Amino acid sequence: MYSFEALAKEFSGRFNTKHFPSTVPQLYEPAEYFLSIGGKRIRPVMCLMANELFGSLHPDAWHVANAIELFHNFTLIHDDIMDKAPLRRGVQTVHTKYGEPTAVLAGDVMIVVAYEYLNKIGSGNLQKILSIFNRTAREVCEGQQLDMEFEKQQQVSMNEYVHMITLKTSVLLAASLQMGGILGGSSEGNQEHLHAFGKNLGIAFQIQDDYLDAFGDPEKFGKQPGGDIRMNKKTFLLIRALETATDTQRKELVRLMKDNPEDKVQRTLGLFRECGVDEWSKDLKDKYMEKALQHLDDIAVISTRKKPLRELADFLVQRDY
Amino acid sequence: MYSFEALAKEFSGRFNTKHFPSTVPQLYEPAEYFLSIGGKRIRPVMCLMANELFGSLHPDAWHVANAIELFHNFTLIHDDIMDKAPLRRGVQTVHTKYGEPTAVLAGDVMIVVAYEYLNKIGSGNLQKILSIFNRTAREVCEGQQLDMEFEKQQQVSMNEYVHMITLKTSVLLAASLQMGGILGGSSEGNQEHLHAFGKNLGIAFQIQDDYLDAFGDPEKFGKQPGGDIRMNKKTFLLIRALETATDTQRKELVRLMKDNPEDKVQRTLGLFRECGVDEWSKDLKDKYMEKALQHLDDIAVISTRKKPLRELADFLVQRDY
Repeated sequence: MYSFEALAKEFSGRFNTKHFPSTVPQLYEPAEYFLSIGGKRIRPVMCLMANELFGSLHPDAWHVANAIELFHNFTLIHDDIMDKAPLRRGVQTVHTKYGEPTAVLAGDVMIVVAYEYLNKIGSGNLQKILSIFNRTAREVCEGQQLDMEFEKQQQVSMNEYVHMITLKTSVLLAASLQMGGILGGSSEGNQEHLHAFGKNLGIAFQIQDDYLDAFGDPEKFGKQPGGDIRMNKKTFLLIRALETATDTQRKELVRLMKDNPEDKVQRTLGLFRECGVDEWSKDLKDKYMEKALQHLDDIAVISTRKKPLRELADFLVQRDY
Repeated sequence: MYSFEALAKEFSGRFNTKHFPSTVPQLYEPAEYFLSIGGKRIRPVMCLMANELFGSLHPDAWHVANAIELFHNFTLIHDDIMDKAPLRRGVQTVHTKYGEPTAVLAGDVMIVVAYEYLNKIGSGNLQKILSIFNRTAREVCEGQQLDMEFEKQQQVSMNEYVHMITLKTSVLLAASLQMGGILGGSSEGNQEHLHAFGKNLGIAFQIQDDYLDAFGDPEKFGKQPGGDIRMNKKTFLLIRALETATDTQRKELVRLMKDNPEDKVQRTLGLFRECGVDEWSKDLKDKYMEKALQHLDDIAVISTRKKPLRELADFLVQRDY
């Protein structure tokens, strides 16, 4: 059994290879380029770890892990087009570097190659894995659509926002774990706990992400906070603030969003603090994290086998900031 | 055994249903909208007919036919974005009606649902069908990329153009037939003939399409000819003309493309005729059609069973204009 770091290193080493043929470089170089800018490869490693929870690594787990990472990158390439994002990880996005038409196609061919990896799975598990993969892929598209809708809407309720985040972010973590569990020979009950662990972990992670974008230490966070506030992006914090603010506070918040003054970030953060959304979001994150860990606890294997997944959860969601 | 028309009607009746859930109508309505604008449903019907060549219709053939048609529509939605096409079949394209981000996602979710249909196939044939489907999907993306590249290039050779058309158009016809053959229990040898039949038929069809866009009777063709010429689109005719023209003719052709005079279509057609590309393209189409029909002949089943595919070939590629 490997630690989280060891599996992450092993996966990255294996994934760091050519995934596309050389036949049409105008199409495949942009796809390889995007993969080369890296990433934490969290999702495929979750799949491998979930497999190891129940038994030694199934050779098919590497194929499924590749498929998951390619699918994730397919969504990023297309999301960047939709969001008109010029940069990702500090380098040019595919549509910025190669143009939109090629970026659409590079994403398209990437999801197809993801399915090519899935089709290397032995026939015993293929149908089951495909079924989870397809449903999840559909849900991720639904989440992205809702995210775009919500950005245009004046009001979004907390329930709606949690639902969107679940689809856009959490279900892929959940499915990665579940698929790994299947390859490890997990029972249905344990698969459900794995899925629920990933789903709640994903929400906790997003709450942390929203929190750090507002209140993060620029030294540790790696970028200047306030990006979401400047863009009027709907986040856990903004939605909570709008829900709990007094009339005066709400009007001030809305005015800041509309007028974009110089000190918008600072004044919005002040209002967030007045509404107590900083403490509230820490509590909410802890609540989801506890739910996640409860499901991990409930998986019927000896607890020493759960150590890598526990490490991963702690790596993703720091509980002490 | 059904005739081509009967199968086309039966398929359209079955396909004319909701393919997407109601959960996120902002995403799924655009997808259903695009399917509702119709189409000849040639590819799925080819799959059904190829199945029937060897035996009665396998229940899985309907799933594969659905997947093929959804995949084809996925490519159309994304191609329309890349080509900035405002209309298809006389109505608004998805990105024109719903915006580009939603059109990207509607395409994405459509290919996922295509894979959901494939995953309904019994496990005996799943891996084989998926393998053909995936390879073909990749090739269609390659073809679209080459098509876009060629439009920017000054010179494209006839071989390059045939290769691009093969990828962009023909391989999906070929794969539809081959997948149908597999479900009908066809031998590998017969599958290869089916594939080659579809590939050559696709090229013949494209040559006809290019010819009709230049020389077609507007009454029969349904639209004013010359669209490709006005857009300087690379076609079998233009590439052949540039390859065989005298220096004077080539200069005149290039000048017409650059200057876009009022009488551009008429004068280009004159040059096409001078270079004999009208007769040449009929001959070339006949050559590919004969190759296609030879492969149909070579399939080892009694010839009466081939009648529907023969009808389809004649429907797609008229030999008397």
